[in-house]
Amino acid sequence: MKIEILCTGDEILTGKTINTNHSYMAQRFVENGFTVNWGTTVGDDRESLQSAFMLASQRADVVIVNGGLGPTVDDLSQEVAAAAAGVGLVLHEQWLSRMEGWYTSRGRVMPANNEKQAMLPEGAEFIDNPVGTACGFAITIEEARFYFTPGVPREMRRMIDEQIIPRLQKARGYDVFTKVKRFHTFGIGESRADLLLDGVEDLVEGGAMKLGFQSHFPQLETKLTVRAESEQSINAMLAPAEAAVRERFAPFILCEDDQTLEGTIVDELIAQQSTLSIMEMHTAGRVTSRLLNTSSEQHDRINRSVVSQDVNALRDAVGDHGVDSVICSSEAALNLASALREKTQSTYALVVLMSLIEKEGDQDGAADVYIAIDGSGENVERFARLPGTGEWSRLGAVELAMDCFRRFLLKQPVYQKIDFEQH
Amino acid sequence: MKIEILCTGDEILTGKTINTNHSYMAQRFVENGFTVNWGTTVGDDRESLQSAFMLASQRADVVIVNGGLGPTVDDLSQEVAAAAAGVGLVLHEQWLSRMEGWYTSRGRVMPANNEKQAMLPEGAEFIDNPVGTACGFAITIEEARFYFTPGVPREMRRMIDEQIIPRLQKARGYDVFTKVKRFHTFGIGESRADLLLDGVEDLVEGGAMKLGFQSHFPQLETKLTVRAESEQSINAMLAPAEAAVRERFAPFILCEDDQTLEGTIVDELIAQQSTLSIMEMHTAGRVTSRLLNTSSEQHDRINRSVVSQDVNALRDAVGDHGVDSVICSSEAALNLASALREKTQSTYALVVLMSLIEKEGDQDGAADVYIAIDGSGENVERFARLPGTGEWSRLGAVELAMDCFRRFLLKQPVYQKIDFEQH
Repeated sequence: MKIEILCTGDEILTGKTINTNHSYMAQRFVENGFTVNWGTTVGDDRESLQSAFMLASQRADVVIVNGGLGPTVDDLSQEVAAAAAGVGLVLHEQWLSRMEGWYTSRGRVMPANNEKQAMLPEGAEFIDNPVGTACGFAITIEEARFYFTPGVPREMRRMIDEQIIPRLQKARGYDVFTKVKRFHTFGIGESRADLLLDGVEDLVEGGAMKLGFQSHFPQLETKLTVRAESEQSINAMLAPAEAAVRERFAPFILCEDDQTLEGTIVDELIAQQSTLSIMEMHTAGRVTSRLLNTSSEQHDRINRSVVSQDVNALRDAVGDHGVDSVICSSEAALNLASALREKTQSTYALVVLMSLIEKEGDQDGAADVYIAIDGSGENVERFARLPGTGEWSRLGAVELAMDCFRRFLLKQPVYQKIDFEQH
Repeated sequence: MKIEILCTGDEILTGKTINTNHSYMAQRFVENGFTVNWGTTVGDDRESLQSAFMLASQRADVVIVNGGLGPTVDDLSQEVAAAAAGVGLVLHEQWLSRMEGWYTSRGRVMPANNEKQAMLPEGAEFIDNPVGTACGFAITIEEARFYFTPGVPREMRRMIDEQIIPRLQKARGYDVFTKVKRFHTFGIGESRADLLLDGVEDLVEGGAMKLGFQSHFPQLETKLTVRAESEQSINAMLAPAEAAVRERFAPFILCEDDQTLEGTIVDELIAQQSTLSIMEMHTAGRVTSRLLNTSSEQHDRINRSVVSQDVNALRDAVGDHGVDSVICSSEAALNLASALREKTQSTYALVVLMSLIEKEGDQDGAADVYIAIDGSGENVERFARLPGTGEWSRLGAVELAMDCFRRFLLKQPVYQKIDFEQH
């Protein structure tokens, strides 16, 4: 089954809007065992649309048209679809009622031009849109089946997942169920990850599982994509491979699937009914902002955070007004962590200090990172020298500090060399 | 001149990578007075590429091919271009030497498969790539001129700006120079901005200037795009419109062109040799992280920042251990700002407090934002009720706090109603 994705709209064509709809649709098709063969982008003009529809109908079995279903004069998808199929437009009474009801329930009157959104090519198959006023539809042009979807990403996504993919699966004549299991790690580079998982693909019979990596520095995402003929068997097929990845990667695994490192930490603080105080230096306050940007309602788990570029200002913030100035060190980090936890009465304190070693001659710059955690009657420190003094070392330091705290919380070894530090 | 953008590569076609190259190229063409008529995306296979090249050559005058110039076997652009033009591939000696020199200067030996990158279709026009090993080239297929560009965004961007656009301008036969002047505002909605700038387009003669808005909530970007036949006259043409926008928008203008709000603040602190301390509540520490994420080297201008979800923890952080607990108010914000400035010995202190009013029945939720600034012998406060308790009100509160501080620093009125607050 050859699939073409045909995106319409001047905003996409002229680059004003980045075409994330194409990538969402393509990814979902590929994950469900389909192949995407061609992508086309045209603007809101009849001639281009007509030409694009005819070309697509000649080379594809399935064409997904995105956009052009709105109420304004430059929304032309229904009109051009009808012309290409050689039929007229007819009013879809039920959709008109649905739209009117939608407006009424919000205390508004439907503008007259919305009626246009209920005009579908004669003989078209109606496709529901539960979250917007642009309904979808399907129609056959030449030999190809065309599916029309709204341009609003939220509406398109639900229609692709709930309406289009099931129809394509039915048209294919056999069921293929796909599951993508994802692991997020920190500290293992892609090539080492590949070596560590040697032979894991063979744990699922018949080549039904594919292993893939995607690097989002400083994290690495490992994907196990498995295809099965029944939904029941898919978890059982995946189980041995999943277990092998957990065993070979742990404790480098930060979290799985849609979970995040920051979410893991906040959830664990909630489960333990614990609180955390933070001190950060040279990290642009990102440990704090990441933990506070989680969707959790319980942001008061983060008791207090102090950010400064000056270790002596941090010392002053915990009430230590010593005369001699201190420099960044593991000892300084441990002292700050202990004082911070005491002062703020939180369960844990996490401190990350950095000194930047500027590039000199042939010698590249580096960042010395001193992390300390105090809590539950014990404390730990972690030192690492990360290459560079810019954004990369900052990203690395933030991730390392958060990962050390995750390991501490979950009673995993805090000190374990990572691939990104200088040895 | 009809332009087609033809992006190649399995990663783009299957959605693994979002196609930002198309939008960059299209935007640059449109800004320079060209029209983009068609977009095509195909994978790394000979048949699709050949077919895409032939179709593009029939409908476009200029085809920009992106990607497929790398050293690996799935990089097919040169090979298919040569086949489509009916010529062979020949070695471009100078490019081979450049690549070898590039490797030698890094103490490495060029891998043999890189030689492939110096094989160009016979008769092709060489196009330089100053920042990578994939050179570009141009060749005529049927009636259309094809320009081949690398898929690496950084390399593509320089080639489009420095090599391709000047060639297209020359081919067009007349010069069109374009300048885009941008203003970033906070507090004015798009419809009010449109009203305020009524008649501004007419200040530039002959319809040579277009006015456009792009909303990046909570900021609004206003673009003046002017086209002229000479580079010399373009600034003079734009001047009256630019002055009118400044007059009608000020003091809502945060910054212009590539400058950011946070950059404006940090630059002004540097110019004044001043420092700032910050307290934030319910903002995920984003005032701090935005100010520290600027490219400035002088991040020590941000003296200290304290983030907490609890106003009493903030009070404790400045050494005020009063027995009664305080609640969020303008008075509390002013007191905290004064104490923070004194404790940290900084020139200015900025405090943003928030109390969230949860949604109740028909009543939508809201966020009460209390901002206070202390410094230079004066202090100011700003209260606003922002609709919603989620991400939007948080974004609004962060922007409002930073904008109040910018206004204070630049001696502009701090208190001025914005379109996004409840009245």
